[in-house]
Amino acid sequence: MPGAVEFWFEFASTYSYPAAMRIEALARGAGVEVTWRPFLLGPIFAAQGWRDSPFNIYPAKGRYMWRDLERTCTRLALPFTRPSQFPRNGLLAARVATAAAGAPWVADFVRGIYRANFVADQDIAQPAVVGALLGALGLAADDWLQRASSDTTKARLRATSDEAMALGIFGAPTLRVGDELFWGNDRVEEAVAWARSGR
Amino acid sequence: MPGAVEFWFEFASTYSYPAAMRIEALARGAGVEVTWRPFLLGPIFAAQGWRDSPFNIYPAKGRYMWRDLERTCTRLALPFTRPSQFPRNGLLAARVATAAAGAPWVADFVRGIYRANFVADQDIAQPAVVGALLGALGLAADDWLQRASSDTTKARLRATSDEAMALGIFGAPTLRVGDELFWGNDRVEEAVAWARSGR
Repeated sequence: MPGAVEFWFEFASTYSYPAAMRIEALARGAGVEVTWRPFLLGPIFAAQGWRDSPFNIYPAKGRYMWRDLERTCTRLALPFTRPSQFPRNGLLAARVATAAAGAPWVADFVRGIYRANFVADQDIAQPAVVGALLGALGLAADDWLQRASSDTTKARLRATSDEAMALGIFGAPTLRVGDELFWGNDRVEEAVAWARSGR
Repeated sequence: MPGAVEFWFEFASTYSYPAAMRIEALARGAGVEVTWRPFLLGPIFAAQGWRDSPFNIYPAKGRYMWRDLERTCTRLALPFTRPSQFPRNGLLAARVATAAAGAPWVADFVRGIYRANFVADQDIAQPAVVGALLGALGLAADDWLQRASSDTTKARLRATSDEAMALGIFGAPTLRVGDELFWGNDRVEEAVAWARSGR
């Protein structure tokens, strides 16, 4: 019996972009359910002593990542524009995704935010950018921005980020199937196959 | 016209093991030439402020890597035993591979050292281990161990490691095709395809 995959992601994360664009179709094709798990990498990086993205801290790794991501998007036929600012602050978008957990439009919202950041080069930290996407999805933007900044939502996102660290998650995207973790866009297919096999 | 791929590797590196076992057959199938480029990660890590493998410095990443490597080897039908010591010192083996550059037995030597480290759990820093492999390949072990420790060989390996850093190499394995770098066992197929296309 096919299982389920948890998709742990952070809106600032570069390799989460191609993974987020692909996961739903791949899972559907395999009869596997996806749960979207927005979380924050900031506290996890801070616990490792990093106050910035490792792609900024280690320049050779960063230069490689941008070229590799470009090649990867070309290979996957995904549009890509290197953001003029990196990393962008995905806190507001993560809070919206948290408040909207389980809503049928979460996947479209997630992909829309990734497109804003990595295709349209928009600042996803801005309420106007997030609100415009919500509006384009036919939702009441102001309502959702308000729910996003409620204490309940803030606490829930903090708890999810704590859970990520407790699970041993150290980067994004991470796909979780049962007790198995699969890190990176390179592991999306393997994670879905693992879930499909119902191991 | 198919091109060539440089395979930059370090004997202590975990993901270099499955990549080293696969690269020659994949390249042959694509009509692509392989150049083996042994180098040392130590100086590159030291320049980033690391005095140990990042898999030891960042425990969550290390735990993940061991499990991921185990799954990867299963998927690729490669035997794997987690080494009882990590990282092992690959300096002597890298010097032998440097001294033997271009010899027809280099690929067999490289794979033999990886098998010793990641299958037989042997200490590849020991001259006896490296010498036994050389002997099994029908070579004069003492001769090659002596050439490995010559000043010429030492200088050549240092120069190669400097070259790696200058090229922007920050981890192993790294495959180089023209000006393009491909990092990790996950990129072996893409690098070979890139070389094959002669871009």
